[in-house]
Amino acid sequence: MFWYVATWARVLYADHIDLARLAGIQVMELRVAFIGMGNVGRAFVRLLQGKRAELAKQYGIRLVVTAIVTARHGSVVSATGLDLDAAAERISSGRSIEGLSGSGPVRDAAEAIERCTADVLFETTPLNPFDGEPATSHIHQALLRGISAVTANKGPVAHGYRRLSQLAANRGAMFRFEGTVMDGCPVFNLAEYCLPGARILSFTGVLNSTSNLILTGMEDGRSMQECLAEAQRLGIAEADPGYDLDGWDTAIKALALANVLMEVDGQAGIAERAGIRDLTLEEVRTAMTQGHAIKLVARAEVSPAGANISVGPERVPRSSVLGGVRGTSNVLVLKTDVMGEIAIVENDPGIDQTAYALLSDMITIHDALVRRAKL
Amino acid sequence: MFWYVATWARVLYADHIDLARLAGIQVMELRVAFIGMGNVGRAFVRLLQGKRAELAKQYGIRLVVTAIVTARHGSVVSATGLDLDAAAERISSGRSIEGLSGSGPVRDAAEAIERCTADVLFETTPLNPFDGEPATSHIHQALLRGISAVTANKGPVAHGYRRLSQLAANRGAMFRFEGTVMDGCPVFNLAEYCLPGARILSFTGVLNSTSNLILTGMEDGRSMQECLAEAQRLGIAEADPGYDLDGWDTAIKALALANVLMEVDGQAGIAERAGIRDLTLEEVRTAMTQGHAIKLVARAEVSPAGANISVGPERVPRSSVLGGVRGTSNVLVLKTDVMGEIAIVENDPGIDQTAYALLSDMITIHDALVRRAKL
Repeated sequence: MFWYVATWARVLYADHIDLARLAGIQVMELRVAFIGMGNVGRAFVRLLQGKRAELAKQYGIRLVVTAIVTARHGSVVSATGLDLDAAAERISSGRSIEGLSGSGPVRDAAEAIERCTADVLFETTPLNPFDGEPATSHIHQALLRGISAVTANKGPVAHGYRRLSQLAANRGAMFRFEGTVMDGCPVFNLAEYCLPGARILSFTGVLNSTSNLILTGMEDGRSMQECLAEAQRLGIAEADPGYDLDGWDTAIKALALANVLMEVDGQAGIAERAGIRDLTLEEVRTAMTQGHAIKLVARAEVSPAGANISVGPERVPRSSVLGGVRGTSNVLVLKTDVMGEIAIVENDPGIDQTAYALLSDMITIHDALVRRAKL
Repeated sequence: MFWYVATWARVLYADHIDLARLAGIQVMELRVAFIGMGNVGRAFVRLLQGKRAELAKQYGIRLVVTAIVTARHGSVVSATGLDLDAAAERISSGRSIEGLSGSGPVRDAAEAIERCTADVLFETTPLNPFDGEPATSHIHQALLRGISAVTANKGPVAHGYRRLSQLAANRGAMFRFEGTVMDGCPVFNLAEYCLPGARILSFTGVLNSTSNLILTGMEDGRSMQECLAEAQRLGIAEADPGYDLDGWDTAIKALALANVLMEVDGQAGIAERAGIRDLTLEEVRTAMTQGHAIKLVARAEVSPAGANISVGPERVPRSSVLGGVRGTSNVLVLKTDVMGEIAIVENDPGIDQTAYALLSDMITIHDALVRRAKL
């Protein structure tokens, strides 16, 4: 029975590849490496499994997995390609992936990145937000080898954007990071692909899901501690909750946005940072009875010296686009020179939306590789 | 003095072209034709004038205007290129453009489209919303000749999307229409460029600025007539206000969205359409005191037979993303298979945002032409 299902799946898959060929879509092997296989990495693998037929049919993508590096399930490379389903099954049942058919073991991420052949590296290791490591080093190493890098880690974009994007350009690779702010909701791609000829002058956003979930909960009369515990249960809070509550996560996301979205010669800097820790239930409830909501708001504006970022709690009208996002939802408002003001809202995101960001970046890179192959 | 300024401007312009060359940007002539020179057309020309240096420097675009067709200022074609500034000056001072240096007169749009050499045609004539003419015919004629077409007219997208986009593909041209829904706020581009690998399952939107301005005004205690007069003063109301008030504009925009955004084999159809005409001040004010807003909402969902669209007034929470758009603002909420729910909001749009849509589409087409030239 297992053999039958596996064969059937393979036939179905081959069929999609043929359909893609018939439709004139160039079917291309995309060699991928995974560094990190935590919640985000595993959600991404599930998404790839679910979308396998569609990716083949619509984009002509055939994945070949050449490396998987995990913290607790071993690390392997493969020249011929790993069985992703078998690897996922082993990881989800707590076993090691070492010894998988066609694989050889590696010591660590650095060795895997050095030895694997890949078009795209997915970096999803846990992050030190203050220096962006080890993600930045992994990405740097991959780009040096001409391997495009995709990450949902905001650290490398906040701390190393210019250096890494320049390196990517020099090596004919891409550095993509849609998942670093507002998960897979288009933010960087929106600015890059949908606002040609327009300049972004300033932005405002509610970018931290944990703070927003807490503030929404406090409006319903629950305590900050109680709401934080809920965020932790949902798996959206940072390991150190101070990182959410004191505005660090918001500030680093704003820094990443300012680096990429604003044409500044100077360095983007955080002028002010405050969090929600000292807000009382009474303040939140009073604002509400007056038609307002308290939100942890990031603001950035271009100045001659660079971009100035400030983060802090603000009272905003409940019927405004900033005041309307509730729970884990996020919003980013962009003010432009010729397209006026637009806002993008992400409703109730979870880990699957972060995984989607990686898929979206992967397809962008694949499209670029297909175009290059045609030149 | 005039000579000095003109020469200086030319030097500055040439300088930008050189800068573009130095930066490795391919400088390309883009031959453009304008059919219609009403409010939208003129706002677009102003935008092109304001962005001339940036377009040259950043995108390597050098515009050559080969035809301008107007209803009241004459119509001309030119093989060598028209002086756009001189044409704009004549139109704004109420004179005819016929006799402009290097131009010859033409009878009508059909003759101009037949005779001009152009890469892109901008179609901004007044529209019959029920059959999409004459815009659809102009676009059809241009595409037949392999000329890409850009329009802010929703009729051709609601009524002829499949036929026109198929024709464009067959002739190696593009059919772009970002300005048909929510002006230049990315809607079609958002779906095309920023949601790769995701499917749109349904959408909800507040899409008609006039109705929304009226409903917001009624919340402040003003009558429907008074608010409609304001919309007319602002130049945003349709010539026949029933078209806004009875939900036709919203329905046709929803039809355009459904045609393009949803993968349906069948035809998108309007199952229900109601407007705001019969709403009373009391209903609007009562909803408000209960924390709600009445909005003219479009909803579309994929069904096995196609996409079903319904348009009608709805009570929504004021602190929701649909309830939060006020005045002329619009919002579109997209529900997807793997990226959850996102919304895009356009704040207080005007005619300049419609003009931006044409610019955005023009740059998209130019990029495609540059890529093709490299193949």
